[in-house]
Amino acid sequence: MSDLPTSIEIHEEGPREGFQIEPGPIPTADKIRLIEALAETGLRHIQVCSFVSARVVPSWADAEDVVAQFRQRPGITYSALWFNDKGLERALAFRDKLTLSGAISLTASEAFTRKNLHRSHAENLEAMRKQTRLHVEKGVPVKAIGVMAAFGCNFQGDIAPAQVVRTIAEGLEIAAECGVEIGRLSLADSMGWATPPRIERVVGEVRSAWPDKQISLHLHDTRGMAVANAMAGLRLGVRRFDSTVGGLGGCPFAGQKGAAGNICTEELVMLCEEMGVQTGVDLERLLEVGRMAEEIVGHPLPSELLHGGALDAFRRAAA
Amino acid sequence: MSDLPTSIEIHEEGPREGFQIEPGPIPTADKIRLIEALAETGLRHIQVCSFVSARVVPSWADAEDVVAQFRQRPGITYSALWFNDKGLERALAFRDKLTLSGAISLTASEAFTRKNLHRSHAENLEAMRKQTRLHVEKGVPVKAIGVMAAFGCNFQGDIAPAQVVRTIAEGLEIAAECGVEIGRLSLADSMGWATPPRIERVVGEVRSAWPDKQISLHLHDTRGMAVANAMAGLRLGVRRFDSTVGGLGGCPFAGQKGAAGNICTEELVMLCEEMGVQTGVDLERLLEVGRMAEEIVGHPLPSELLHGGALDAFRRAAA
Repeated sequence: MSDLPTSIEIHEEGPREGFQIEPGPIPTADKIRLIEALAETGLRHIQVCSFVSARVVPSWADAEDVVAQFRQRPGITYSALWFNDKGLERALAFRDKLTLSGAISLTASEAFTRKNLHRSHAENLEAMRKQTRLHVEKGVPVKAIGVMAAFGCNFQGDIAPAQVVRTIAEGLEIAAECGVEIGRLSLADSMGWATPPRIERVVGEVRSAWPDKQISLHLHDTRGMAVANAMAGLRLGVRRFDSTVGGLGGCPFAGQKGAAGNICTEELVMLCEEMGVQTGVDLERLLEVGRMAEEIVGHPLPSELLHGGALDAFRRAAA
Repeated sequence: MSDLPTSIEIHEEGPREGFQIEPGPIPTADKIRLIEALAETGLRHIQVCSFVSARVVPSWADAEDVVAQFRQRPGITYSALWFNDKGLERALAFRDKLTLSGAISLTASEAFTRKNLHRSHAENLEAMRKQTRLHVEKGVPVKAIGVMAAFGCNFQGDIAPAQVVRTIAEGLEIAAECGVEIGRLSLADSMGWATPPRIERVVGEVRSAWPDKQISLHLHDTRGMAVANAMAGLRLGVRRFDSTVGGLGGCPFAGQKGAAGNICTEELVMLCEEMGVQTGVDLERLLEVGRMAEEIVGHPLPSELLHGGALDAFRRAAA
């Protein structure tokens, strides 16, 4: 009846996604406090920062300080994001502390590529070819292809699933040229266009085209559909999701001020655990970290569960 | 593969649910403004007020003024809620303007019955028996059984689907005694305990027990699951939903200050329309009314779509 997995892998991106969009400034110590608290919840994968130009994203000017100073917890992989050679160089300085892994990052929407990256799709392909070669040179593995705007675009409208398949195929050509093996295809609903049937169509077509590759979903809750979309993905056997505690984040280049951010980690965890899909996360501890995140950013976060409370706490009180 | 309906019936409860929980006071004219604006969106069923004791719910002290003064739009049914004889008497004064319809309102959780109604389940059954007789006497149809806390309870924990079935059976006994025919079973997730698999189990068991009765869902977004739950209901063929514009509302007796309210009408509409399930609602007009509702209550409402914007507007801009 369904391909529901027995467990999923959650990649927590709250620190990176969240602090990138906040007007800030968020003190370095608070960023570290959040990263260290997330590591105590059972989450195993935490993206801690973005090595991005301080001119473009001033809130990550302290990326080096954050990475240098946070205390690692054994068994957890800490990752970072970068977009160009300079970012990679900065990340390489921390290759002992961070798990560095590159991606061939493409966008299914030409219009969004131009808005977000200020280049054409063809230019972006060329940039990714160069970047992948550089990763290989530096010994940084490249195992994933990311497709942004895979379900629709505020600037281009609907995106055909065939366009997503075509974009992945272009990424695989780059991988083949550079001699890297892609194990994972990451589909991002960067601007919140997905609905469950669209998840089913796109994931279905991608899975049919490359049945041996792992699919991961990066969902945004811009229009309130993220949990329903995660549910659709789970039932198609998707076993890896990105999310952010409290629903931190959002796309600074989507042209929607005030819109919600990523799918909340806690709602993803609740959805899974109530269905018997293991996440390894202690939901009540995670909600405490969500409250800490609200305190750090100084405003309520969009997570409903953060304000509604974990079922297990009510179950215990009722028992 | 699924029992997805071709269209659904939405019962907008924003005015009634929303203003009941707001600290207020909300001016009568604003309540009327919202009701009249909702009637211009394509919604066909609007619950306009609660005839409840002004001592218990001060924000509905002006129910009579609201009902007397709003302008009706042809083709729309306007309804009201009441909980006892006094409320019914007040509603009867407006039987020409309102579509009066009673329900046998029960709760699957004894603990919630006590918190919410200050009586035992047995006492509530007896009260409903008397109230149903009174409805019959007054010529007010009673066609529905409502079950609150049908998916779980903050005070009692998980609710077994068998308990929901038992509660409905008790309601049907009352209906039989009073000679009324029940066509609809309304399942309410009053405190946001439902998840998609639980919707499937409860709706599945209720549908198996009474295959000829219509099932409607009253969902709350307390823990962010409402849209996913609606999706699960749709796929089981549920064709009637209660909802509130902007996600107004919430349960004042659930003990969760700051928790989200009902499923947002606009997110329900987007989910349906993107799947080809007709709602009759003009989503962009509805979002305008959502913004009016935010202005009236004086704070942001939990709807994400209200802040993310309708896809069609972006589609047109991109074309």
